[in-house]
Amino acid sequence: MIVNMAATATQEEINHVMDRIKECGFLPHLIQGAERTVIGVVGKNRGRRSEIESLRVAPGVEDIIPISQPFTLVSLELQTTRTIVDVKGVEIGGPELVVMAGPCSVESREQLMETARGVKAAGAKILRGGAYKPRTSPYDFQGLGIEGLKILKEASEETGLPVVTEVMGVEDLDAVVEYADMMQVGARNMQNYPLLRRLATVPRPILLKRGPSATIKEWLLAAEYLLSGGNPNVVLCERGIKTFDSELRNTMDLAGVALATVARSPGLRGNDAGPGRRNGDGRGGTVESPRHAP
Amino acid sequence: MIVNMAATATQEEINHVMDRIKECGFLPHLIQGAERTVIGVVGKNRGRRSEIESLRVAPGVEDIIPISQPFTLVSLELQTTRTIVDVKGVEIGGPELVVMAGPCSVESREQLMETARGVKAAGAKILRGGAYKPRTSPYDFQGLGIEGLKILKEASEETGLPVVTEVMGVEDLDAVVEYADMMQVGARNMQNYPLLRRLATVPRPILLKRGPSATIKEWLLAAEYLLSGGNPNVVLCERGIKTFDSELRNTMDLAGVALATVARSPGLRGNDAGPGRRNGDGRGGTVESPRHAP
Amino acid sequence: MIVNMAATATQEEINHVMDRIKECGFLPHLIQGAERTVIGVVGKNRGRRSEIESLRVAPGVEDIIPISQPFTLVSLELQTTRTIVDVKGVEIGGPELVVMAGPCSVESREQLMETARGVKAAGAKILRGGAYKPRTSPYDFQGLGIEGLKILKEASEETGLPVVTEVMGVEDLDAVVEYADMMQVGARNMQNYPLLRRLATVPRPILLKRGPSATIKEWLLAAEYLLSGGNPNVVLCERGIKTFDSELRNTMDLAGVALATVARSPGLRGNDAGPGRRNGDGRGGTVESPRHAP
Amino acid sequence: MIVNMAATATQEEINHVMDRIKECGFLPHLIQGAERTVIGVVGKNRGRRSEIESLRVAPGVEDIIPISQPFTLVSLELQTTRTIVDVKGVEIGGPELVVMAGPCSVESREQLMETARGVKAAGAKILRGGAYKPRTSPYDFQGLGIEGLKILKEASEETGLPVVTEVMGVEDLDAVVEYADMMQVGARNMQNYPLLRRLATVPRPILLKRGPSATIKEWLLAAEYLLSGGNPNVVLCERGIKTFDSELRNTMDLAGVALATVARSPGLRGNDAGPGRRNGDGRGGTVESPRHAP
Repeated sequence: MIVNMAATATQEEINHVMDRIKECGFLPHLIQGAERTVIGVVGKNRGRRSEIESLRVAPGVEDIIPISQPFTLVSLELQTTRTIVDVKGVEIGGPELVVMAGPCSVESREQLMETARGVKAAGAKILRGGAYKPRTSPYDFQGLGIEGLKILKEASEETGLPVVTEVMGVEDLDAVVEYADMMQVGARNMQNYPLLRRLATVPRPILLKRGPSATIKEWLLAAEYLLSGGNPNVVLCERGIKTFDSELRNTMDLAGVALATVARSPGLRGNDAGPGRRNGDGRGGTVESPRHAP
Repeated sequence: MIVNMAATATQEEINHVMDRIKECGFLPHLIQGAERTVIGVVGKNRGRRSEIESLRVAPGVEDIIPISQPFTLVSLELQTTRTIVDVKGVEIGGPELVVMAGPCSVESREQLMETARGVKAAGAKILRGGAYKPRTSPYDFQGLGIEGLKILKEASEETGLPVVTEVMGVEDLDAVVEYADMMQVGARNMQNYPLLRRLATVPRPILLKRGPSATIKEWLLAAEYLLSGGNPNVVLCERGIKTFDSELRNTMDLAGVALATVARSPGLRGNDAGPGRRNGDGRGGTVESPRHAP
Repeated sequence: MIVNMAATATQEEINHVMDRIKECGFLPHLIQGAERTVIGVVGKNRGRRSEIESLRVAPGVEDIIPISQPFTLVSLELQTTRTIVDVKGVEIGGPELVVMAGPCSVESREQLMETARGVKAAGAKILRGGAYKPRTSPYDFQGLGIEGLKILKEASEETGLPVVTEVMGVEDLDAVVEYADMMQVGARNMQNYPLLRRLATVPRPILLKRGPSATIKEWLLAAEYLLSGGNPNVVLCERGIKTFDSELRNTMDLAGVALATVARSPGLRGNDAGPGRRNGDGRGGTVESPRHAP
Repeated sequence: MIVNMAATATQEEINHVMDRIKECGFLPHLIQGAERTVIGVVGKNRGRRSEIESLRVAPGVEDIIPISQPFTLVSLELQTTRTIVDVKGVEIGGPELVVMAGPCSVESREQLMETARGVKAAGAKILRGGAYKPRTSPYDFQGLGIEGLKILKEASEETGLPVVTEVMGVEDLDAVVEYADMMQVGARNMQNYPLLRRLATVPRPILLKRGPSATIKEWLLAAEYLLSGGNPNVVLCERGIKTFDSELRNTMDLAGVALATVARSPGLRGNDAGPGRRNGDGRGGTVESPRHAP
């Protein structure tokens, strides 16, 4: 649920609502925008939902909006402005398209420095490269580790490009935080919840890759782990899904990108729209529409 | 295999090569462009492939190109110019993007006429609508049939838009040819080979939808049925594939469109490229690259 | 909907109910078992459903059962006994497991006769082999056609085994009926509705293969095309589905076989069970259970 | 590669071969069976493969077998006897089928104790139950944690059943080792390589669930992580894969179980079999056979 505070609400009224939310066993999540103040009610406590709903009549409260999706903080309902994630000065989500480029893995100082210069010259804004590599076989090259992180740092300092690199496990987390500007969660780790919970507490933005067989909902809920744990700086990365067609490594799910936006926007969907919404025709519900091959 | 004739080749030399191809149990497929003449060698007769190869020294022959793909006529190797399919004056494949629009099925005269006018006003160039509908349930509306075809014709005459509509079976083929300007093969019929063989002989261009679980190769081979049977006017329609993610009816396979082009272009692939090609680095083989989740 | 007649219902009462069903725009489907008489109400006419429901008070009617599934005749609700399909004396669905064996395609008289004898000696009860072959490439061997059918017939006569073979299109249907004892619908034709509609009128049992990307519901509705068209002798053939794992040609969906039975049995499902049913615990609803990876 | 030592090989000869393997940059993996001694050569060092091959003429060496599969220790080539994994006295892989049963998650002491008694009475040999639960939503119940482990231990002591439970991250590993008899790797963690590497060093057998979109090869290579890291006690658990058919949560891949065995058995496959092998007919190569829908 989301509590919309009135434009005229006092700080005292806001505090009162937040205290009540805590007393009911939920976590209040305050967003104070220039124009309106919104409080996300995070958690599951079905027995006391009605108590939150009764806050509708509390002083300073304008409206309470139920959220039918399983996520709260990821929902666009709570957003007063477009999310912009700042990676050491480079803004993702703003008017400019940001390209991140670099090799799959850091293989040597020479290889990376040369690539970094090329990437910079070509106009990319962020340098990527793997120091820790998840490899299907234990006998394949597993990455240079901390040595690779140092090379990335050096390339970053020379070119001025921020660096994004994968963190595979909690044991490498401190090292990656020290050297990298953005932490990448690989496709195989999208549902590695202990890792997500730790990343939620890290002072770095997260690049969250979609798992090869993750639904949009599973992907957004993985992001909810990060947001609800305290890290609002999450960038979603669609990198292809596994399908029957193995001629390409993965099938790029372009429509899935649009669907992620629709799924986050209750107002775009027919079934949970409140009165006065625009989608009176109920046509927004493509997300739930039955599958049939024409 | 493909026989490239020299620019100076005489008609007699061309005829000689075509006769030899027939004698070896293959079908010659002649393409005389403004700049060069090319003969596709269609069929499978492994025992006599070498006889075709020995035509390399026949008078008027410039080169013989083996095709490693399972299709011949669909291959871009045989193309001297970009394919343009003419649908009653509307050119598909030319510089202009062609939009086809209309309802899923023709439900009534009023519905279709109104839609057709809207479609025309919005700038679409071809009107679509189903008169014969493949329906998962026998109890669902199966289309207006011949009545629907007549309505489509009327809408076409009023708006000037050519009409594309689905043909589901050979028994309806003559009726659809009479009323429609382009024949649509539905996703479920992509591998209905008796239907494809009949459509290959029809004086109408074909819109060939990709089956919901068809690989690119299966799709191109379905087109090869049409081309080898005598109908060169085939438009491929990517309409989404079935994947684990059922939130949208289908997953649009945008990269598959690019892959279809790559698969048709032997010169773009590392493994079957001859000497002097551009891809000396062998990196073109993405099609064959092993799948692994990064 | 299904109308259960009382054990004491007279023929006149049965006729009256059937007439009323027709008047309401539905098709009555009479099943007179030794113990009870049941009338399936086939079709879609939502506006007049309530009229059928009011037949509950008609003389001789014991009960009216709504069917929430999209199929009626395939539903086990209508079955008074286990379906047994007789293929020239061999009973499929009875106490004995029936094995059908033979080559993918009939290649020659010698090959088939030898195989048929081996198949017979090994204990199989039905001989299979393809005379018409759906092939991905137009250049692959397409089957011996009518010559293959004659060879199958000869092998059948020598060994005494009934023959099942694929029919690909309506134009070959009469020939296949003449020579074969059971008609096979191939995976690619499972949703070839014009073919299904014609097979529904043929005096031969049908072996209906599941399409490579067909859901259980789509498969059962394909069977409903056959049953509602007049052919009650349908055998379902699970032959594997297309999945991301292409190491085997197909993934055998063993649980799908069980699911097909559950889907046909309203009494096994929690959501549409009436009072007095066995599944009071509502646990039968596995079919609808949300997917999540443990 | 695998080095087969002669039955007459002395310990000195064995040591010599192992030293040479190390000098070439590989890891020797010694298996001394009652009948023969075998040394697995683990690792990738293409440049020095030929040096290993030249050991063929070293004293005491009978044969050197190349392994074309990407895994070595998982290969059945190296096995002299059938693998039996001992879970506190219960043998998995022996003549008796072992059933493991219990609730998805440990919810309370009462729930688990009652279930454990029922599981025991029904004949299961191992008790399962989750104390740490990977949940799609951060707001869902995440398991009782260490409290759940204690309850499992108590149930194990009362019933005498060994306990298997999931370990989600390296931070919980010591606790799970203390209370559980077998460690479960969940489907989402099959490719969590830091976790696998730590589990390889733990004195407990591992139950390795197949990932929802993991190929057989990826699954076996995950097992290779465990074996090559030092833990030979690995049980593979097929738990269903994600496919287009979401009516059931997962599609059980029964044939995949057989394929896993075939993939581990070079002798069953046509393409890499040496002379004198049993598969002279070349029929084992189903694994590589091209996919096509009949």
